[in-house]
Amino acid sequence: MASSWMSIPPNSPFSLSNIPFGIISTAPDSTPRPAIAIGPWALDLHVFASNKGFSHLPEITPHLSVFSSPTLNAFAALGRSTTSAVRTYLQSIFDENTPYPDILRGNPELRATALIHQSHVTMHLPFTITDYTDFYVGLNHALNCTRILRGIGSLQPNYRHLPVGYHGRASSVVVSGTPIRRPSGQILNPAAETPEVMFSACRKLDFELELGCFVAKGNAHGEPVPINEAESYLFGVVLLNDWSARDIQAWEMVPLGPFNAKNFATSVSPWVVTMEALEPFLVPSMERGRSVLKYLAEKRKANVFDINLEVDVTTPAGTTKTVCHTSGRHLLFSFPQMLAHHTVGGCPFNTGDLIGSGTISGADDPATFGSLLENTENGTKAHVFNEEERRTFLQDGDTVTFRGICGEGEYGLVGFGECQGKILPAVEFKA
Amino acid sequence: MASSWMSIPPNSPFSLSNIPFGIISTAPDSTPRPAIAIGPWALDLHVFASNKGFSHLPEITPHLSVFSSPTLNAFAALGRSTTSAVRTYLQSIFDENTPYPDILRGNPELRATALIHQSHVTMHLPFTITDYTDFYVGLNHALNCTRILRGIGSLQPNYRHLPVGYHGRASSVVVSGTPIRRPSGQILNPAAETPEVMFSACRKLDFELELGCFVAKGNAHGEPVPINEAESYLFGVVLLNDWSARDIQAWEMVPLGPFNAKNFATSVSPWVVTMEALEPFLVPSMERGRSVLKYLAEKRKANVFDINLEVDVTTPAGTTKTVCHTSGRHLLFSFPQMLAHHTVGGCPFNTGDLIGSGTISGADDPATFGSLLENTENGTKAHVFNEEERRTFLQDGDTVTFRGICGEGEYGLVGFGECQGKILPAVEFKA
Repeated sequence: MASSWMSIPPNSPFSLSNIPFGIISTAPDSTPRPAIAIGPWALDLHVFASNKGFSHLPEITPHLSVFSSPTLNAFAALGRSTTSAVRTYLQSIFDENTPYPDILRGNPELRATALIHQSHVTMHLPFTITDYTDFYVGLNHALNCTRILRGIGSLQPNYRHLPVGYHGRASSVVVSGTPIRRPSGQILNPAAETPEVMFSACRKLDFELELGCFVAKGNAHGEPVPINEAESYLFGVVLLNDWSARDIQAWEMVPLGPFNAKNFATSVSPWVVTMEALEPFLVPSMERGRSVLKYLAEKRKANVFDINLEVDVTTPAGTTKTVCHTSGRHLLFSFPQMLAHHTVGGCPFNTGDLIGSGTISGADDPATFGSLLENTENGTKAHVFNEEERRTFLQDGDTVTFRGICGEGEYGLVGFGECQGKILPAVEFKA
Repeated sequence: MASSWMSIPPNSPFSLSNIPFGIISTAPDSTPRPAIAIGPWALDLHVFASNKGFSHLPEITPHLSVFSSPTLNAFAALGRSTTSAVRTYLQSIFDENTPYPDILRGNPELRATALIHQSHVTMHLPFTITDYTDFYVGLNHALNCTRILRGIGSLQPNYRHLPVGYHGRASSVVVSGTPIRRPSGQILNPAAETPEVMFSACRKLDFELELGCFVAKGNAHGEPVPINEAESYLFGVVLLNDWSARDIQAWEMVPLGPFNAKNFATSVSPWVVTMEALEPFLVPSMERGRSVLKYLAEKRKANVFDINLEVDVTTPAGTTKTVCHTSGRHLLFSFPQMLAHHTVGGCPFNTGDLIGSGTISGADDPATFGSLLENTENGTKAHVFNEEERRTFLQDGDTVTFRGICGEGEYGLVGFGECQGKILPAVEFKA
């Protein structure tokens, strides 16, 4: 395990093995710009690139303007071989045996301007997202929902044959830290004896624990992405909270799927962990019990990530309870399979498009379930925080925090940081 | 009815009453730029604005750069009062009693450079579309689908309470004239006795006759658009073909809605007919049989458009049959209601976002049904073109053409022109 000349705390999610990319701004310079995370620091890539930081990586020289862009789209569009070379180069810059000590280690002026403590940076949405698709390939989640909401133990016939998904709303994807306004809408009056439609603030506000994957390279309209090339189209992964209004969803979703129940907000963690950083944590996806059609058949066996995932809920009084521990491995299809399926009919992708995995839940144990719908059995079993505080669904002022980290030891962790959102009260309705 | 000093054929869809906006390029100048249609001509607004064409409309002076933009987004974002003033001004320029004869009528040099015959222009997608939503508020279509596919005559309980819709794929919206590649994907083998999944090119390729509406003004995240302000957020209307792969759809769509069955392509007509031009053709929407919740209650009674709509299918041999005549009035909810519903939970819109109405079908008579699924009873009753040529679903080389026009007489028509697409064979599958 390589060490750095920087002082990186042993439990940092941003070890030298990670090098995630994000978009920062600071009080002295409010222009959003690319950065990487390294320990508790951010390296401002705009400042770094402007001060000859990349002088030992000639292939990036024609493209240095990507580090002055307010999103990662231009950088990711350079393609995986280039972005991977940038990451490897930055690892070498921070390595305790760096071959280029003149660049940063021995350059206190550049260290002073380019390295900023993360407590002094504001994080922004990492990509301009033109299309967002949310899948539903967490098999345990799908089984839990079917059992809890419909009382049956079997899924629809297509479920194990293809990655089931739906188009989401790109405009409402926000970066971690953005407050989440409780949505209002049509629900069925739970107090009515016969079905009665009413307008109400959502009474069953929930989170969904997911992984999101940003696309690096697009495909032309009409040209499917072959399954065994699909991984090279992907840039990296974030934690994703698919906020869900369960009562709005129950009323609206038949027959065309969830709509206003989901499009009020989706949160993503700000640092995008690259496919390269996650590769050591690949494990086989869940047992499917049948083969897939050829256009979905990956040569590799290990295709999903063993990421330790946790969800905390913090009440307005400041009490925190961890309501879910699980792993990113509980998925039936991989991101390359989702991309291959999504494009098999010719649907075009653009750089910065976002794919959500669907909710990730472990098997059997409610403490591993990635939504309140599941781990409270649709609000019938409350989480007990203390004598005064219980939760079925989310209340105003609650904060939900996701964490994700790969690695078991104390060093070389590859983590995501946090994906957080605090619930604001619903807006008052104006006719 | 105002007349023009230009020679506009009496049956032109682009009368002086219309003035639709679009994006053109030409052989001498391949840069896409805004234009209006007037009779058989396009007025190049980049050239017009650069040559003092707007000198009698001072309020547009600070914004003339919008006419050098490759899309209508910047123009539409100026807001309805400004874009409406531009349209009214352009009507006055072309009026036979124009108060400003020096601008164009008496300016042969500008006429020669700014007026281009439409046969010499290439039309482009009018807006950069960041989000696309397709509704399903054609009540007759919904009833037909339920009857044909499920053998029942009633819709799901929510149908008359809210405009049912789903998020579509913005990246695959294309302008009329773009060829449509037949999609491949998973279908159930129709020859198998027990359900058997197979990979195949779509065998049930269909069109759906819809109207699309482009959004002029966005709303902030978390702030619903009030119903009686919603019309002012809209820019204008196009014909929209929601190409549909019925066999892919049948297998994939439960429980999260249509996905690959729709995301391979959606076509729109190139000239955007403004809300102002359509206002004289407003009629009340279909009878709902119940009241709506307050957030959907429009003060006005007339809220949908009586647009005469037609669909032609032309075979590779050149035979054309009109397979549908109907009207845009067959909708249960208006575009303002769709926008108010879509934003009621706080979902943000951006300028250029696109809303589809859902398929428009008349009642009872198959000749008024807006899809082949409906007017061939799911492929069981063929359209007879002649002794050799019949169609249930679309074959390779077929061309589908939508036309839409408002007005009964010979003058002052407000039309959309055409929305057309030709079917290309499926791509050969590469593993």
